Amino acid sequence: VIDFRSDNTHGASPEMFEALQRAAAGNATSYGDDHLTARLRERCRDLFETDVDLFPVVTGTAANALALAAMTPPDGTILCHANAHIIHDELGAAGFFTGGATLLPLPGDDGKLDPETIAAAPPASCLSIANATEAGTVYTPAHLASLGEAARRHNLGVHLDGARFTNALASLGCTPADLTWRAGVDVLSFGATKNGCLAAELLVVFRRELAAAIAPLWQRSGHRLSKTRFLAAQLEAYLDHDLWLRNARHANACARRIAEGVTEIDGVAIVRPVDANVVFLRLDAHIAEALETAGILFYDWPLFGPDVYRFVSGFTTTDEDITRLLATITP
Amino acid sequence: VIDFRSDNTHGASPEMFEALQRAAAGNATSYGDDHLTARLRERCRDLFETDVDLFPVVTGTAANALALAAMTPPDGTILCHANAHIIHDELGAAGFFTGGATLLPLPGDDGKLDPETIAAAPPASCLSIANATEAGTVYTPAHLASLGEAARRHNLGVHLDGARFTNALASLGCTPADLTWRAGVDVLSFGATKNGCLAAELLVVFRRELAAAIAPLWQRSGHRLSKTRFLAAQLEAYLDHDLWLRNARHANACARRIAEGVTEIDGVAIVRPVDANVVFLRLDAHIAEALETAGILFYDWPLFGPDVYRFVSGFTTTDEDITRLLATITP
Amino acid sequence: VIDFRSDNTHGASPEMFEALQRAAAGNATSYGDDHLTARLRERCRDLFETDVDLFPVVTGTAANALALAAMTPPDGTILCHANAHIIHDELGAAGFFTGGATLLPLPGDDGKLDPETIAAAPPASCLSIANATEAGTVYTPAHLASLGEAARRHNLGVHLDGARFTNALASLGCTPADLTWRAGVDVLSFGATKNGCLAAELLVVFRRELAAAIAPLWQRSGHRLSKTRFLAAQLEAYLDHDLWLRNARHANACARRIAEGVTEIDGVAIVRPVDANVVFLRLDAHIAEALETAGILFYDWPLFGPDVYRFVSGFTTTDEDITRLLATITP
Amino acid sequence: VIDFRSDNTHGASPEMFEALQRAAAGNATSYGDDHLTARLRERCRDLFETDVDLFPVVTGTAANALALAAMTPPDGTILCHANAHIIHDELGAAGFFTGGATLLPLPGDDGKLDPETIAAAPPASCLSIANATEAGTVYTPAHLASLGEAARRHNLGVHLDGARFTNALASLGCTPADLTWRAGVDVLSFGATKNGCLAAELLVVFRRELAAAIAPLWQRSGHRLSKTRFLAAQLEAYLDHDLWLRNARHANACARRIAEGVTEIDGVAIVRPVDANVVFLRLDAHIAEALETAGILFYDWPLFGPDVYRFVSGFTTTDEDITRLLATITP
Repeated sequence: VIDFRSDNTHGASPEMFEALQRAAAGNATSYGDDHLTARLRERCRDLFETDVDLFPVVTGTAANALALAAMTPPDGTILCHANAHIIHDELGAAGFFTGGATLLPLPGDDGKLDPETIAAAPPASCLSIANATEAGTVYTPAHLASLGEAARRHNLGVHLDGARFTNALASLGCTPADLTWRAGVDVLSFGATKNGCLAAELLVVFRRELAAAIAPLWQRSGHRLSKTRFLAAQLEAYLDHDLWLRNARHANACARRIAEGVTEIDGVAIVRPVDANVVFLRLDAHIAEALETAGILFYDWPLFGPDVYRFVSGFTTTDEDITRLLATITP
Repeated sequence: VIDFRSDNTHGASPEMFEALQRAAAGNATSYGDDHLTARLRERCRDLFETDVDLFPVVTGTAANALALAAMTPPDGTILCHANAHIIHDELGAAGFFTGGATLLPLPGDDGKLDPETIAAAPPASCLSIANATEAGTVYTPAHLASLGEAARRHNLGVHLDGARFTNALASLGCTPADLTWRAGVDVLSFGATKNGCLAAELLVVFRRELAAAIAPLWQRSGHRLSKTRFLAAQLEAYLDHDLWLRNARHANACARRIAEGVTEIDGVAIVRPVDANVVFLRLDAHIAEALETAGILFYDWPLFGPDVYRFVSGFTTTDEDITRLLATITP
Repeated sequence: VIDFRSDNTHGASPEMFEALQRAAAGNATSYGDDHLTARLRERCRDLFETDVDLFPVVTGTAANALALAAMTPPDGTILCHANAHIIHDELGAAGFFTGGATLLPLPGDDGKLDPETIAAAPPASCLSIANATEAGTVYTPAHLASLGEAARRHNLGVHLDGARFTNALASLGCTPADLTWRAGVDVLSFGATKNGCLAAELLVVFRRELAAAIAPLWQRSGHRLSKTRFLAAQLEAYLDHDLWLRNARHANACARRIAEGVTEIDGVAIVRPVDANVVFLRLDAHIAEALETAGILFYDWPLFGPDVYRFVSGFTTTDEDITRLLATITP
Repeated sequence: VIDFRSDNTHGASPEMFEALQRAAAGNATSYGDDHLTARLRERCRDLFETDVDLFPVVTGTAANALALAAMTPPDGTILCHANAHIIHDELGAAGFFTGGATLLPLPGDDGKLDPETIAAAPPASCLSIANATEAGTVYTPAHLASLGEAARRHNLGVHLDGARFTNALASLGCTPADLTWRAGVDVLSFGATKNGCLAAELLVVFRRELAAAIAPLWQRSGHRLSKTRFLAAQLEAYLDHDLWLRNARHANACARRIAEGVTEIDGVAIVRPVDANVVFLRLDAHIAEALETAGILFYDWPLFGPDVYRFVSGFTTTDEDITRLLATITP
């Protein structure tokens, strides 16, 4: 089956299984106090060029909600883009974990916010940004930093939803530090499930006092695994030998190939800039039908207008998948 | 290292890794709508001899809190044993997931409740029982059924915390149905992590309307994995070829060997009946010191009195571990 | 002092004190099971021409939050106008009482929503409308009914924030039924504090099953007064001899007089239609300063633009207050 | 009707109405920033001989829940007596306001806790004591201070539920300071509704940093009245001319008269020491029936055993009420 529904429909990179098997050897202190998790922390300090605290979890929803709860009191407000995943796709997890905080959606082209929008927003506790965005676009470090600065001026904590952080990084070619704390990010939801792991997301905390707030809620929400070492093992394998970047570069290249392949075709319009691994296309009805008839899987995306569809490539997408997709689209 | 701290310090059964690798093949619908999860449901219907709804999660805390929230309104009360894990070890997860319900601890010998205690308790919404108990003891099907009946008479939902369900089952030699719905249990937290999986617990729901209450909270609490198939794969491998029962029988036998090995020794007292894989010993100071000097790991357990220590055996405990433990205890 | 800051800075109508004194006679069943509260219910059934359930409380925030919680699950969404009091002024009470639901602000001219906006909104549980609105405007029964119909089509419960319900009613000259259940309203926060009572708001429930959801939360949130009879007494005195309508008509007339008095004056612009007792004016700096110098109290209202100020008249505003205000504004 | 059901079935002291009427004059800054509330604070500083922060509210449930939430994180535990009002009568308000904290009931004779019990309890955040207790008994300052000391040693905040604080004070003849901060109390729920007010309870905060935690929740829970001056006015009248102490002394004397009147009577047993205004009697069936036949109102109290009934006197209980009660009990 050819599947462009989401990058979370892909399996897992082969490197994962060996890493898990190695991690299973012997007994280890439970609840994250094992040496694999400690080693991952050292690794992330190098990677991010600063001290960090880590909370491995199994879903992006958990990572996002824990991060937001650390920076937002129950009566606080979280600013985010009107298309944000935390508003549309997490069934109120932010409200649940914060004890009732308000999500305030803000407008912005191509899924991105601007510093002026933040400056004009009502008083709030926290700014949540996604990079890559839900529109498949990518913030540059400079753009991110301008948001971070606006946030600081208004005393907002800054959360980065990085479900597709590596896709953004691979697209920009900058360093992890440039896209996070150097741009004013306090907590990163560092996604790995969509890009090669079985189920592993890493909450990376750049401000020590926030870690103290996250720790009890991590356990209380049922997200502190007794065998956290199996999350650490996945994340280590993810970073080893640039697997994360190789996977993301591959997925991004697939999306670019789709975008380039449809530019000249009648009845097809690219709806958002294709910066990462997600392509939004407006398709004439007969093309959408042809794709369905061919058994190619994808989602329609009414949020971006009528006849708009989303195509997501992933780390196991093949050249043949793209070739078949383009052949079916091309008249 | 010889480690009797907990069964969650053990790695994972080798069968798991092959199953995970198989499960990674191809794309699959995300969020539990995959065919592996569907197949697991069929499997559990056979196993429990009744229709069930399933919610795979990664921790017992998540399983317990979701179950309790399905049966307890925010202003409700949950009855449980005074030693219950849900009171002492989950940092208020039940309060968090229910939106503030009250846990009411009830007394009972050897970690077990009696129907009279439930009949005499104030009005409540839910009864939560653990089997095996936190005291390492096991309820018989008849005892459980008497609690289930008392619960029904007082209109209480019944939750079974089965973090060590298989240890109880292996100890009793009865069927899963006898220990659950036939005894009045509405929702089971079916533990697997402590007994062979990497991280997999299964919420088994015996009353359809409760499943409808759990579904949104499953997602909202961040416990609905996009790649749920990797939990289903672990749980299937767990049930295949009786791996679950073999692992639990092994752990139980280790605990029995410890109990038998210390009965005649001066300065050692067995504090609770040893029905499953957990042994509570009162040790003279010099024995506790000798164990520590030998590098044998275990926890002290002040809840059960001064000088009481807990020894938990698991699926990777070796005969040699037990031999070394007994040799160190024996003068 | 001349005070146009809010209608909640006014004291209480003299009729209240006699009513409270009468209500104090003798012992009465507590927690709202007294005969004064029962009599109020009969009274409201006549007034609204339908059966109702009542929950007297002491603040609009409590009334609104209880109403919203009855219609919105923790993972639900509440649609409201972008200027709504429930978003800007209640410190997340809706999030607190619902257990984390999301407030989704929608655009609309003059503080009013349109049915098309509701039809285009994402899936939600509840629609909250204010009448009079936060912009001092008033929905007609027909406009309200079009919202109610849109809500029904999208399966939304409908809450009416009536902090200034009587001002709207007095402005329109229609019946309470026309502005509530006949227009599709399920629960009304019927305000009385701003219009003559000491502290009394009445939650009026038009759908019986919602009352069952509100009852426990009413107590649990600390809003079920042991001596509820003293709230019932205020509300009865409020309705007696048309006190409520007389007070509201007076306040509305004051606002109209302000609006008429400033229409021709240079440096003054009326920013929103003046339908009730609230006037928004854009004032040249020297006029705003002159008012402050004269000791006249009012709030600036940056939400409606630079140099915009809000003037609210109330049931104790005097003709002389208005005369002094206009004299100070007029060059 | 002769009513011994509760002190909250009584009306209100006549002094209240004049005070309310005076408070209604003129406009005043809303939400507690008025001069009456400021004056009350000065008054309470004198009364308690220390600086205090005040939050006037309308119910004891609100006062208790706000106090507990200021001292207990969502994953915290609150220690209290097994009979506590916060466990049995507030529908989980503490769980709601704290975001899910656990109430842990502790044993103790006559409704009182002992320091040893607190020392032996599991780790917790907060200790909640009631004085007078739910058993109608009263802690001495020395007993209270021993609890306060135990609490400090275990790092617990201390809440005093003073729904009947004045009855305790009048019974002991000590100062308000002796029964609160000098004994280690951090926050007092100072009850006034049961003893003369219409609806007024005062949260008295002895530690400044707790006030900062209470302030937003006060508003967010709907308990910050726009016309807070009407609560301040009631509380001022309550303290003026010793009204509070006179009312409590009267109610206490009534209870003593009941206790003395029944001591020698067959078929009647006093079940708990009568220290304040609440009397628990075990009555032979024919006596209970005689009382009901005579139309005397009271509650049965199964928590304290079979055939136990509670008789509460209040500030409007008359000598004749007592005479009639005793005459009906006496054979």
